[in-house]
Amino acid sequence: MTVFVCPGSYDPITFGHVDVIARCASLADTVILAIANNAEKCYLFTAEERAELARDAVSHLSNVRVDIVEGLMVERYKSFNPVIVKGVRGPSDFQHEAIQSTVNREISGFETFYLPATPSLSHISSSIVKELGHYGVDLSEFTTERVAQALAMKLNQQ
Amino acid sequence: MTVFVCPGSYDPITFGHVDVIARCASLADTVILAIANNAEKCYLFTAEERAELARDAVSHLSNVRVDIVEGLMVERYKSFNPVIVKGVRGPSDFQHEAIQSTVNREISGFETFYLPATPSLSHISSSIVKELGHYGVDLSEFTTERVAQALAMKLNQQ
Amino acid sequence: MTVFVCPGSYDPITFGHVDVIARCASLADTVILAIANNAEKCYLFTAEERAELARDAVSHLSNVRVDIVEGLMVERYKSFNPVIVKGVRGPSDFQHEAIQSTVNREISGFETFYLPATPSLSHISSSIVKELGHYGVDLSEFTTERVAQALAMKLNQQ
Amino acid sequence: MTVFVCPGSYDPITFGHVDVIARCASLADTVILAIANNAEKCYLFTAEERAELARDAVSHLSNVRVDIVEGLMVERYKSFNPVIVKGVRGPSDFQHEAIQSTVNREISGFETFYLPATPSLSHISSSIVKELGHYGVDLSEFTTERVAQALAMKLNQQ
Amino acid sequence: MTVFVCPGSYDPITFGHVDVIARCASLADTVILAIANNAEKCYLFTAEERAELARDAVSHLSNVRVDIVEGLMVERYKSFNPVIVKGVRGPSDFQHEAIQSTVNREISGFETFYLPATPSLSHISSSIVKELGHYGVDLSEFTTERVAQALAMKLNQQ
Amino acid sequence: MTVFVCPGSYDPITFGHVDVIARCASLADTVILAIANNAEKCYLFTAEERAELARDAVSHLSNVRVDIVEGLMVERYKSFNPVIVKGVRGPSDFQHEAIQSTVNREISGFETFYLPATPSLSHISSSIVKELGHYGVDLSEFTTERVAQALAMKLNQQ
Repeated sequence: MTVFVCPGSYDPITFGHVDVIARCASLADTVILAIANNAEKCYLFTAEERAELARDAVSHLSNVRVDIVEGLMVERYKSFNPVIVKGVRGPSDFQHEAIQSTVNREISGFETFYLPATPSLSHISSSIVKELGHYGVDLSEFTTERVAQALAMKLNQQ
Repeated sequence: MTVFVCPGSYDPITFGHVDVIARCASLADTVILAIANNAEKCYLFTAEERAELARDAVSHLSNVRVDIVEGLMVERYKSFNPVIVKGVRGPSDFQHEAIQSTVNREISGFETFYLPATPSLSHISSSIVKELGHYGVDLSEFTTERVAQALAMKLNQQ
Repeated sequence: MTVFVCPGSYDPITFGHVDVIARCASLADTVILAIANNAEKCYLFTAEERAELARDAVSHLSNVRVDIVEGLMVERYKSFNPVIVKGVRGPSDFQHEAIQSTVNREISGFETFYLPATPSLSHISSSIVKELGHYGVDLSEFTTERVAQALAMKLNQQ
Repeated sequence: MTVFVCPGSYDPITFGHVDVIARCASLADTVILAIANNAEKCYLFTAEERAELARDAVSHLSNVRVDIVEGLMVERYKSFNPVIVKGVRGPSDFQHEAIQSTVNREISGFETFYLPATPSLSHISSSIVKELGHYGVDLSEFTTERVAQALAMKLNQQ
Repeated sequence: MTVFVCPGSYDPITFGHVDVIARCASLADTVILAIANNAEKCYLFTAEERAELARDAVSHLSNVRVDIVEGLMVERYKSFNPVIVKGVRGPSDFQHEAIQSTVNREISGFETFYLPATPSLSHISSSIVKELGHYGVDLSEFTTERVAQALAMKLNQQ
Repeated sequence: MTVFVCPGSYDPITFGHVDVIARCASLADTVILAIANNAEKCYLFTAEERAELARDAVSHLSNVRVDIVEGLMVERYKSFNPVIVKGVRGPSDFQHEAIQSTVNREISGFETFYLPATPSLSHISSSIVKELGHYGVDLSEFTTERVAQALAMKLNQQ
């Protein structure tokens, strides 16, 4: 059984993420959308909020499971012997990612496959979505309606 | 059944190629090492020579099959619905590859996964092997003995 | 009066080129699509063929003029005091282009503006079009019908 | 009428910025030096200080206007139908910028042109100026005397 | 007499650093491992702790001297007329470094030489070591035992 | 005694090369300007012509010696135990160079140091000089008068 793990912050999930997850879902038996929750990082949304928004965004993909990872990602999934899959938006990202994948191989033996972003979505990222949300820009080309609403609410609270 | 296709010129096969193929072989049911034979390109070795050297180099990997592709690679394998897997040695390669993968997706629907080269092998390429062979450098860290011999013979004939 | 010069080989013109030209045409009074014809380079199509295919592809843009440049491009247009505009598909291209633009500024004073390719077209290039044409792939997402026909005819003659 | 908008933090303005603005000023009817004032970002100088230092630095360029932008830049200038122009110092910057320009096109229709930095100024940035100012290095090759003074004063106050 | 200065944060020192220092030590008469202590930056270890861990890690290299730099590095060493040497892990790092080296040449006349990281160590950095230490991963392939212990103790205190 | 070897085609030598050689000459006891003469490559100038033009261009630097290398460069200089030094013009070059330096280390143990090009000369290369020479552009900012003359004569002969 092929298991792909797609790790990330998903703070919040975007159409760029959904595209990578959907492409993985058509190639693997199971896809785990693994939401990193690192005590040293600052997130706009809590891990539970990020998971709920992600579950909603991928609810049409029956073999995708959303999971929150508190500790070391490669530790949590070692019983599945999974392949890690990550979307990459360009060469600068790739250099950073290649370093990360070597570290993961060294500490766990897991391989990481990189999937180039679909070009028409390659400008979309969580940080762009948050920045545009801050200015009240229509986000319907960038992320789900539910994320857009959650973002508006969250930014109003601040 | 998972089928990975690893396309390339393999002119000749190197330890960098063997590493990528072996990593794929441990993740897929079948790996097709697909040797491109493009009428417009110049190769040092014939397609049959490249295939024979590749077969020898991966003979320890029971689920790898060596194949020569004369026409459009994505056409030849469409009945398998495979995933294409390519090794990438750095960011500059990645930009070129990401363009190629988008073209392949557009004309065939096939996805391409990129696997970063193992760092200790990331300096090895077919062209480096040919250049060093030309100068009579010991190739035992770069490719198989059989390739080293074939290269010495080929370069003597020229 | 604003004049943009968009230099290139256009061997042959693609939808990537047409997109850059159209974006320029909406910003400048006149756009010169400047077809380089360098005696030291090999082209698949003659300069006249490339010009005719380009004229057909941009015939809907009334302020675009197609021109063949035999010598030094910056020499030919110096009376217009134009701005050079080039599409760029990614960071690797940009490094090469930035060097070219500095040379052009030094020898002519002309500035070069770079326009990032529209992401959904960023995988299209003349060489991809020629390669796919060689394999008989449907080119309707890559270039005009007239280019596709001319390419089929040209490749049959070879 | 051609209007170029050159957005940035200008915290503080440097000779690298002045070079880009001057090159734009010779090509456009009007150049707007647009100082972003983003509530979520930390600046060393207030928006008013940055504007005053910028006005002083470009006072020799009669068609340049300095403006502070509190909200979404593309919103503020939409009546002008401007072209955004940004200096780029190298390939890594370009990848980041190309993403930003696609976002701006998608939300406003504005095009962004990139102008490679003049090589002899390509090492100069606001952050380098602040870092050198901190160590009391002579800044006369990097920015205006007024900026150097303002920086010395500001760093003494901290 | 050839003096190489290898500046950095060394927060903490890794096997990647030690490799660069050792390669320098075999080429220069004296190598100064220069630990930057910049009042505006946050370090996990104090300058004294970083110096002690570095001294331990390079104790087998008799011509290496560990030094803490509070102010401007190029100022401190100007009497030696040294060459600065830095390890670089890939093209993205190089762009950043090339800018820094131009600044250093301009303010001091010092040249900076770049040494590509040994591929098998090119994924190691201080930040990776801190991140892995946080998760309790075995660090014996990444840094010295003393650093691993100091890190465990430091992270427990937080 | 410090010996730097600066290998290249020098086809022909440019002010970019002279700058790197001069910077090396002020740091090493001896600099060897090593002209590669690879039987498989095409050069515009013969090895002897390239050597003569290089000798003329660096005649003001008393510790520089011009040498022609027919075989493997690292073989020829192994008795000197030199350091290889190469100028690099940007990140794309660096990736290519880092691979070459790893190969050289592996086959000879020689280290390669990279020196970023002086920004104001970073657009100059042998190929740009040849291209501009072909169009009769004034080369006085790019290379020596002797090279400009030799190039004019060579291009007339073709």
